Amino acid sequence: MKKNAFYAQSGGVTSVINATAAALILESKKHKSKIGKVYAGKNGILGALNEELIDTSKESISAIESLKSRPGGVFGSCRVKLKSLEENKKEYKRLVEVFKAHDIGYFFYNGGNDSADTAFKVSQISKKLGYPINCIAIPKTVDNDLAVTDCCPGFGSAAKYIATSTLEASLDVASMSKTSTKVFILEVMGRHAGWMAASSALARKDKNDPPHIILMPEVIFNQKNFISKIKDIVKRDGYCVIVASEGVKNSKGKFLAESDTKDAFGHAQLGGVAPYLSKLITEKLKFKNHWAVSDYLQRSARHIASKTDQLHAEAVGIHAVKYAVKGLNGVMPVIVRGKGKKYSWKIEPAPLSKIANVEKKLPKSFISKDGFNVNSKAISYLKPLIAGEAFPEFKDGIPRISNLKLMLTPKKLKKYIP
Amino acid sequence: MKKNAFYAQSGGVTSVINATAAALILESKKHKSKIGKVYAGKNGILGALNEELIDTSKESISAIESLKSRPGGVFGSCRVKLKSLEENKKEYKRLVEVFKAHDIGYFFYNGGNDSADTAFKVSQISKKLGYPINCIAIPKTVDNDLAVTDCCPGFGSAAKYIATSTLEASLDVASMSKTSTKVFILEVMGRHAGWMAASSALARKDKNDPPHIILMPEVIFNQKNFISKIKDIVKRDGYCVIVASEGVKNSKGKFLAESDTKDAFGHAQLGGVAPYLSKLITEKLKFKNHWAVSDYLQRSARHIASKTDQLHAEAVGIHAVKYAVKGLNGVMPVIVRGKGKKYSWKIEPAPLSKIANVEKKLPKSFISKDGFNVNSKAISYLKPLIAGEAFPEFKDGIPRISNLKLMLTPKKLKKYIP
Repeated sequence: MKKNAFYAQSGGVTSVINATAAALILESKKHKSKIGKVYAGKNGILGALNEELIDTSKESISAIESLKSRPGGVFGSCRVKLKSLEENKKEYKRLVEVFKAHDIGYFFYNGGNDSADTAFKVSQISKKLGYPINCIAIPKTVDNDLAVTDCCPGFGSAAKYIATSTLEASLDVASMSKTSTKVFILEVMGRHAGWMAASSALARKDKNDPPHIILMPEVIFNQKNFISKIKDIVKRDGYCVIVASEGVKNSKGKFLAESDTKDAFGHAQLGGVAPYLSKLITEKLKFKNHWAVSDYLQRSARHIASKTDQLHAEAVGIHAVKYAVKGLNGVMPVIVRGKGKKYSWKIEPAPLSKIANVEKKLPKSFISKDGFNVNSKAISYLKPLIAGEAFPEFKDGIPRISNLKLMLTPKKLKKYIP
Repeated sequence: MKKNAFYAQSGGVTSVINATAAALILESKKHKSKIGKVYAGKNGILGALNEELIDTSKESISAIESLKSRPGGVFGSCRVKLKSLEENKKEYKRLVEVFKAHDIGYFFYNGGNDSADTAFKVSQISKKLGYPINCIAIPKTVDNDLAVTDCCPGFGSAAKYIATSTLEASLDVASMSKTSTKVFILEVMGRHAGWMAASSALARKDKNDPPHIILMPEVIFNQKNFISKIKDIVKRDGYCVIVASEGVKNSKGKFLAESDTKDAFGHAQLGGVAPYLSKLITEKLKFKNHWAVSDYLQRSARHIASKTDQLHAEAVGIHAVKYAVKGLNGVMPVIVRGKGKKYSWKIEPAPLSKIANVEKKLPKSFISKDGFNVNSKAISYLKPLIAGEAFPEFKDGIPRISNLKLMLTPKKLKKYIP
């Protein structure tokens, strides 16, 4: 029985989420007896609720192929979490209404923890509302914090960007340190998990190479030790490079970026752990310092994507389709690492019940004793994920981005009023 | 007559300054009858004053070649400006003492405005102190603010990084804008000149593409117009991307980054024009916004260097040597753009008197009427400078950086006490 498919992008986007989309759309074309059209939700799940369905069959094969090197979420993403079926049945009934109207039998949801939760809820529609649907969640997040899967598509490329940027900026500050900047701070994403900060360690060739200090949300910030460590490193090497997760917290569990000591005056801190640390270093050590906040740059830097990550992103898209046509429901294609010394991986289905809402932090066994670094175990885990380059095509000096038609399929239903 | 050469890196480094160094060292080897050893100053001019001379003849050819893709200043740079010969004769006498001791007859100084000034002063040693020296300044600065030369080595690569990052981050924020981030701000370098901010315009394919607003130091910040423009753009496109020079000033001539309106409470602003604008947008428009500060990342991003810039950087190194052995003194090899439609360039010598201490800002004729953008004239100027890629070799997922010996030549003089 042939059914159409619905695919949506959810939550913070990555530099390779469109590679997943492209692989999924192209793989679907190989299963013409089971899958008809692939509709992409405009702005994630909102596209389903609002019946804004982008008809990907209107795009040329080359346009779909071009998505493999386009960062961001081409169909639009959203930060919307469905309530449970019991709490908001209306939403699920609307989904079923839209699915019925457009003959949708496959639901693909490409996102992180929250999205796995939404997909898990949608996977229960068959049983609870009697509408048959095969629901597959597809992993994506630069945070690398999904359970079960060995890593998350999007992370490897962000990690490669961070390791490369740390290496390059370190060579810069090393040159300047004699008469100018002594400390450089790079702030990276990671509100709750330190995977991205940890990946900066891949910039090192030797033990004492920069980054000299890595601050992760998993370790409570110890100001005294931090200041004394910087002092020691500047004494030893002439300069110090620090990579800090945005989510570093103090002993009161408060984000450093929000913990302006002077807020008795009613001042809101402008945000950013890097400027906070910069101020601290200037006050306590009088070292000239520079800071950078990479924010969206790190998760959209497709120009320095990891080939391995790119392959993972495509593989989960392909396997999502394979699982769906096999009749699987409520699963996610996850990345499983081989046991051998040489890095190998395969894709397997895992139940969403084990993934939804679970957050995988950096394990304690990856963190150095003093809490300012990661160890060789972490390096062994991280290294293969940034391996290989996948440069996009360039035109006029910048990555070539193709325009898509993004045509909406005609609506058949009344407007949805939430 | 055969003489040794002294080469030094000065001021803020770039992703291609070592390419200039490599080209200069390799070119020197072609003039064995005139140039003996090339000594590189450890930490710029300080290396000459302190008699810390790195003997580049100890490095293998492949090690020198590898410098072509190494960002930062491999020999160390410095922020030191020599006083005039009249004000501090002692310094110049010391230079002559070191030059004599090591038989140095060529002085190459690789830097920006201030360095051109230092080189100009050194070029007068022959006449004023009677020690014969051929002094050539070599252009380098991401700021692109040197006079006479059409552009500055280092700028094209920073511009390519900024255009690419703006493009990538814009695709990201566009995906998120329906339910989350509506405004993204990227802060770039440029304390006095807006060349780097302007280069973000190269991210556009169509007129209305991001970046939607470019803030340059050449234009006084008008808060009212700024806020109203963001509002209009978010209404039109759903999101707004802003690229701001760190050096944007208000009508009182004060840097925005230092102009915290609440400083009556004695609060020091943490710095950064991006967090300042972010706070302003949150207060005035309540739009969720994100900001990034690229700082050293933009000027060290060798992984996305411009091939054109790389070729410029090598060419000025080669011509510096050619001019020196011809007996020129007090000149800089500058880049001259051809008149034709197709981009072409050549290198010519220009007198340092016309370059030292002059700052070339973005011309008014490049800036749009409303002051929030650059026009097609600017684009025509900028576009060829980011053309072509010059990817470094990668190893284990990051750019390969070779170790150099950096051996100091034995000292012959007493320690210098300034």
